[in-house]
Amino acid sequence: MTTPPSRTGLVELTTEECWRLLHAAGAGRIAVTVGTTPDIFPVNYRIKDGEIAIRTEAGTKLAAATLMHAVAFEIDEIDHAEHKGWSVVVKGHGREPTSLDEIVALDDLGIEPWVDVPKTRWLVITPTEVTGRRIPS
Amino acid sequence: MTTPPSRTGLVELTTEECWRLLHAAGAGRIAVTVGTTPDIFPVNYRIKDGEIAIRTEAGTKLAAATLMHAVAFEIDEIDHAEHKGWSVVVKGHGREPTSLDEIVALDDLGIEPWVDVPKTRWLVITPTEVTGRRIPS
Repeated sequence: MTTPPSRTGLVELTTEECWRLLHAAGAGRIAVTVGTTPDIFPVNYRIKDGEIAIRTEAGTKLAAATLMHAVAFEIDEIDHAEHKGWSVVVKGHGREPTSLDEIVALDDLGIEPWVDVPKTRWLVITPTEVTGRRIPS
Repeated sequence: MTTPPSRTGLVELTTEECWRLLHAAGAGRIAVTVGTTPDIFPVNYRIKDGEIAIRTEAGTKLAAATLMHAVAFEIDEIDHAEHKGWSVVVKGHGREPTSLDEIVALDDLGIEPWVDVPKTRWLVITPTEVTGRRIPS
């Protein structure tokens, strides 16, 4: 069954398609609000138990801005020249794992930092809404 | 001259490098704050006179959330497997052009919508801050 294009001309993805794409990607962007001002950070991540796990470090703006606050997370694959592509947006809340069991399980995910700087903290996004769209071909 | 890695282990790009990348790309993401909640939208864009021009349509959440408000705009190219890549983040304010001259000039940029839906409005981001980083190789 094909979902008809929405008012924006984009085709809505099913929740299942969104999760499949979220599992397959590994790099995305997180949007946070600092006061009333948005900010955006590229991050690498893994999915664990239906949540988005991001390795970060203490004292970063990302960690400060995100923990316990509403966040938006996005992945996409846009071929600008070909007018092809899709995007998935996750709305949710950031939390920092505090149980040793969970931290060990996250460390076992094998997310390697992009840079050789210790990243010892985790940021986990608990999704409240997952939506996706693709450009109809 | 090579800029040393920052505390995050990433190398800061110069403003000139950021603008070169902004001119060369054509698809990015805009982060906005709706109330206190962040949202994020993939968009295509062009640079015109040092501003970011995005074609949109009346009545969209994007237009509503962005006009006259603080926004963040991001482009990146991340090779997740190779741990290579860069990102540029623009902070600024959204405005809607009202002069016919400016609208005609924007229409002449030739930004084609990704979908066959009329997009008759423009959203222009006036930058207040442009920063970029790359993963050191």
